[in-house]
Formats: sequence, structure tokens, C-alpha cells
Amino acid sequence: MSYPRDFRDKGLATLGDSLANFVFSLALSDFTGKPAGGRVPNAALAIAMERAGLKHVIPPRTDKHGKGDIAEAIMAYAWLEGVLTIEEAVRILKENFDEDVLHPYRNKEAIGKAFGELLKLIKERLAL
Amino acid sequence: MSYPRDFRDKGLATLGDSLANFVFSLALSDFTGKPAGGRVPNAALAIAMERAGLKHVIPPRTDKHGKGDIAEAIMAYAWLEGVLTIEEAVRILKENFDEDVLHPYRNKEAIGKAFGELLKLIKERLAL
Repeated sequence: MSYPRDFRDKGLATLGDSLANFVFSLALSDFTGKPAGGRVPNAALAIAMERAGLKHVIPPRTDKHGKGDIAEAIMAYAWLEGVLTIEEAVRILKENFDEDVLHPYRNKEAIGKAFGELLKLIKERLAL
Repeated sequence: MSYPRDFRDKGLATLGDSLANFVFSLALSDFTGKPAGGRVPNAALAIAMERAGLKHVIPPRTDKHGKGDIAEAIMAYAWLEGVLTIEEAVRILKENFDEDVLHPYRNKEAIGKAFGELLKLIKERLAL
């Protein structure tokens, strides 16, 4: 498989979407002690990008959905490059979860915090 | 993590949803040679259940969405039990893909065929 180091790439974003939802679901399952799943809200990924200090890779006037796509593309790229495994991603998310990840509206901030830690590590390893 | 051998379990279905979309996205990426992703339609999973000879595990009067949930729960259970790895699932899907997986409306039948092969293997290994 060939892929560009371009975080606006739509293919990377769609692959990253399923990767992010999968590691999130696994971390949530570990956290709650039983099978669970869910989709990562774009709002949470936008928060995560900000917390990780990755605003410089987001083009001006990019909306929440676009920020989510870029975060997903970065995660897919990092995973394809082998700088991060699924197991490690799940562990980092789980370690940074708190009860709010299950809250009906406080969840975005809580999920954003955990994904922010994941993106910080990726930022370091990819020297972004 | 504890989980029941109950394919109507909602937790297994939601975990299985993200697992199915992830292995589908990886298989699609391998098949097309570039990062790609997508969600597996419930209609495709309903076709897959039928092709795999798994109608006997579906309660009467279950709609397409419910059939999809059961297929996803079975896949999550098989993966949690360790009878199937992500790598093997991706390989089986990819080997059973044809050009129609990318077709706007013939895709459901084509994706259903590939997931049918995956479910056949799981059926055998879990003695369903």
C-alpha cells in the first residue's frame, strides 16, 4: 500500500476514522470491563489536536469536521509507519480516561483529553 | 474484560461494529493499494449471515439492522476468544473482494460475499 505524508489526504482520514473508532472502542471496553464501542466525535478530535499542540498542521478556516479528518489522517499515517501499535494506542487512551468519557455531554472534553495524549506521542515520534 | 456468549449482547455488537469497519477498511486499503475506509452496511452483513448458514442463530422477525448487530457480535466474540486475528480477517476479506465492493449499489452483495466467507470460518471455529 502506498500513501502520502499529507494529512489532508481523504484516504488516510477514512482509514484513520475506522482505526480511531476501533482503538476507542477497545479502550472503552477495557475501561468499563465489558464489551463497548462508539464513534469518536469530531469535537473530541478537534479538542485533542489543540491539546497536543498540533494547530500548526491545520489549514486556516478548517471546521470541526475537517479538524477531525486531519487528526484521523495523522493517526492512520503513524500506524502505517509503524510508530504506534494498536495495543499501545489502547493503553494510552485507557490510562487517560475518566468517568466523563461515558457522560452524555461532558464526554467530548474527556475523550479529547485522552486522544490529546495519543496525538502528543505521535507528534513527538513523527517530529510534527 | 468479561463478556457473554450471547450474540444479542449490545456491547458485543458495538465493539464488533468498530472491529468490522476496521478490518473492512484495511482489506479495502490492501485491495485498492491506497488508504481507504468505510462502514460495512447492515444489508451486507445480513447477506453474509445467510451465505454463512447462520440463520439459525437469528431470532425470528429480526430486521436487517438486528441481523447486522448479531453478525457484529459474533465477530467481536470470535476475536475476543482468540479464534481469529485481525490479520487473518483482513486477508480473508481481501481474497474474497472483487471490483463490485467499490460499486455504488452492487457493493452490498460483494461485501456480503466476503464477510460470508469470514463468518463461515468463525462458524466452524466456534462450532455454531
